[in-house]
Amino acid sequence: MTGSLVVVGTGPGNPEQMTPEAAAAIAAAEDFFGYFPYLDRLSLRHDQRRHASDNREELARAREALAMAAAGGKVCVVSGGDPGVFAMAAAVCEALEAGPEEWRDIDLTIIPGVTAMLAVAAKAGAPLGHDFCAISLSTNLKPWHVIEERIVAAAKAGFVMAFYNPISKARPNQLGAAFDLLRHHLPPSVPVIFGRAAGRPDEAIRTVSLADAAPEMADMATCIIVGTSETRVIERGGKQPLVYSPRSYRGGSA
Amino acid sequence: MTGSLVVVGTGPGNPEQMTPEAAAAIAAAEDFFGYFPYLDRLSLRHDQRRHASDNREELARAREALAMAAAGGKVCVVSGGDPGVFAMAAAVCEALEAGPEEWRDIDLTIIPGVTAMLAVAAKAGAPLGHDFCAISLSTNLKPWHVIEERIVAAAKAGFVMAFYNPISKARPNQLGAAFDLLRHHLPPSVPVIFGRAAGRPDEAIRTVSLADAAPEMADMATCIIVGTSETRVIERGGKQPLVYSPRSYRGGSA
Repeated sequence: MTGSLVVVGTGPGNPEQMTPEAAAAIAAAEDFFGYFPYLDRLSLRHDQRRHASDNREELARAREALAMAAAGGKVCVVSGGDPGVFAMAAAVCEALEAGPEEWRDIDLTIIPGVTAMLAVAAKAGAPLGHDFCAISLSTNLKPWHVIEERIVAAAKAGFVMAFYNPISKARPNQLGAAFDLLRHHLPPSVPVIFGRAAGRPDEAIRTVSLADAAPEMADMATCIIVGTSETRVIERGGKQPLVYSPRSYRGGSA
Repeated sequence: MTGSLVVVGTGPGNPEQMTPEAAAAIAAAEDFFGYFPYLDRLSLRHDQRRHASDNREELARAREALAMAAAGGKVCVVSGGDPGVFAMAAAVCEALEAGPEEWRDIDLTIIPGVTAMLAVAAKAGAPLGHDFCAISLSTNLKPWHVIEERIVAAAKAGFVMAFYNPISKARPNQLGAAFDLLRHHLPPSVPVIFGRAAGRPDEAIRTVSLADAAPEMADMATCIIVGTSETRVIERGGKQPLVYSPRSYRGGSA
């Protein structure tokens, strides 16, 4: 008997930012697979089983979850943010395609969530208010030269950029290299937002100019938004500045 | 006395996809500004006042909302999806910057939501599983040549693309032109997803190849996701195919 697999986006980490649809899917599942801090955020019942794993084990985790669903389980794969943005949905699809034919019969549902860049943008103002792109800076899954080419293409074409997976202990160097590259293609005044743990108690949102942006301002839990030459900063006395990218193209060079 | 302004993302339209944070902000506000179909989706109380307006009136709506908040109101500006993605947050920031100094004292909060591309991607599989960009095809706020340049840059650099505002009665031609342009830069087999009203009762998700993609497949309420040459389609017998973009770069040309 084939069971079900639901891949759930739990949002940025604040339970108030998880959709009722995601909460209902979690309540209905019996076995939970995910990176352990994401599972820790859930209030699971005693009859719900945890199968926590480390990050960088996405494909193995996806296979285990699919196998259990194929055997009749009611399985939930838990992602932070949105499962479709640098998270578990693609890993599940990849494992499913490479796996046994019967995995295609599994009742598979993917439930969207608020991804980090949206939560960070909301705290800062509206930096994603114009055309934008999302780039993972991790070299675990693609070579650095491809990341460089995409950053340059995005800067030249006038896209705001959101960087996911900007830095980690194993990859301390990409973020600084990305800022150096950007300084060749964008004015030094371009705003850069470092959004850490948006919506959680340890939230920290900081905006600096590209000239001052440094990799030490980020950690694994940071999503970074780089504006364009058209992105504006509104100072507001005692309040945090508002950063936004105007909806209209004003004809400046990127 | 300065009041408050909250800009709320109500998600794709299904109440189950609106966050508790957004629902609480709506419950706490007294005056509601927004495009009328978005206001129609809310279950407002009798003591909550509606100020509905047409689309394409974003800046005027933002000014009215800010003026009421500056006069002490508890004001809510309602967006579909996420307010920061081609929606009201940038219009509010723009109006605030151009407005009277005292508007900067307004207690302004922006509440993120699930934006259309995430809801459509979840229904299709994981097409946004690799680096991606979001482009508004509307020429109301930027010239067509800029849109063309961005589409070509994104295709050449290997970004998956999500098109917002793809077509309307007043702008019937951009989407067909975008597909024609893409056919010069991407293989004809690249999957194109037309996601209409994802999560709502009238939802329609359809995947075709770029060769077959046609503007008649979309309307104003459609978000379109264009894959890359690496995006995969998994056939599943009676079920809808799964479309996903692998997390790893496999070295193909874009």
